[in-house]
Amino acid sequence: MEYTKPLARLIEYFQKLPSIGPKTAMRLALYIVKMSEQEVSNFAQALLDAKSRISYCETCFNMSCSNPCEICSDNQRNKTIVCVVAETKDLMAIEKTNEYQGLYHVLQGLISPIDGIGPDDIRIKELLYRVANNDIKEVILALNPSVEGEATSLYLCKLLKPFNIKITRIAFGLPMGSELEYADEMTLTRALEGRVEIE
Amino acid sequence: MEYTKPLARLIEYFQKLPSIGPKTAMRLALYIVKMSEQEVSNFAQALLDAKSRISYCETCFNMSCSNPCEICSDNQRNKTIVCVVAETKDLMAIEKTNEYQGLYHVLQGLISPIDGIGPDDIRIKELLYRVANNDIKEVILALNPSVEGEATSLYLCKLLKPFNIKITRIAFGLPMGSELEYADEMTLTRALEGRVEIE
Repeated sequence: MEYTKPLARLIEYFQKLPSIGPKTAMRLALYIVKMSEQEVSNFAQALLDAKSRISYCETCFNMSCSNPCEICSDNQRNKTIVCVVAETKDLMAIEKTNEYQGLYHVLQGLISPIDGIGPDDIRIKELLYRVANNDIKEVILALNPSVEGEATSLYLCKLLKPFNIKITRIAFGLPMGSELEYADEMTLTRALEGRVEIE
Repeated sequence: MEYTKPLARLIEYFQKLPSIGPKTAMRLALYIVKMSEQEVSNFAQALLDAKSRISYCETCFNMSCSNPCEICSDNQRNKTIVCVVAETKDLMAIEKTNEYQGLYHVLQGLISPIDGIGPDDIRIKELLYRVANNDIKEVILALNPSVEGEATSLYLCKLLKPFNIKITRIAFGLPMGSELEYADEMTLTRALEGRVEIE
């Protein structure tokens, strides 16, 4: 039996989304059919709104409806510190800690020669321009501890050195609540390398 | 930091869907913003289409754009057998086996006193009407092996007995590829009870 056509199409669209497999796509599509007409129409409108109204801040390349974005235009924030992240979702993760009060720079990707992504494909030029033309005292590199993240961090470090500013990197080590026994070798190595003196 | 409003709204809508938690909802919403305008508009249209065009077959209560549905109106199918399932997704799972050639009856739920769902809240009356008014020779009960599924099966069995037709139940036992060692007691008990003579 074929699914009835509008259902098959909806399942297909759900399946295009990340982390949605065929079973989940079917479950979601069936759920949509059971929702009220009003709710479905609101959901469809929310999709269209998000796409049409959100674009990128031209300073930090965070997703936003305004330009500059809410963070860049917030005068309470420390404009001398810039935290470099790969994607908007990383920015959001850091914002959730409520600990960081500086600005961001979203690279919109990481250098990855295998995927054909070179330094010119991500927002590196724009970062250098910001550092050159603003009173920035510290750049924090907050990229994933992956091959691509490490490569991008090294590359950025080399480019930022001449500006004579503080360049830092977030700490890699054991996650809180984990057990040393089960940590992988790489994490343990980084945790040992990054050991901090107890005062 | 608050999410920018259209994004927050979209995340909220995604989170209302089953099996979508806050993290997945955020990932999906960010993905939507990165999709092309055309794709987002197609997706929104697919949602609206599915809701507006799909309704229920008035014979078997399967989701369909037509009434009677594709299965009920298919003359290749054996109209003397009716397989009773709880939800459309169960029907779809059985259809995927390509083994079953009879008709279906979707109860649209299971009897569950805890959730306040009684026999009158699901399509039991309609099943009895079908059995009474059609040349049906066998009813297969294919309900989940849960408390609700068992209760509903028992209830249906009692109601169907007077019609003097064959009433069967799908087999419960060890799933294929599983290991006896790891099977739970209930499954093993049912597998033993349902043992079949080797010919």
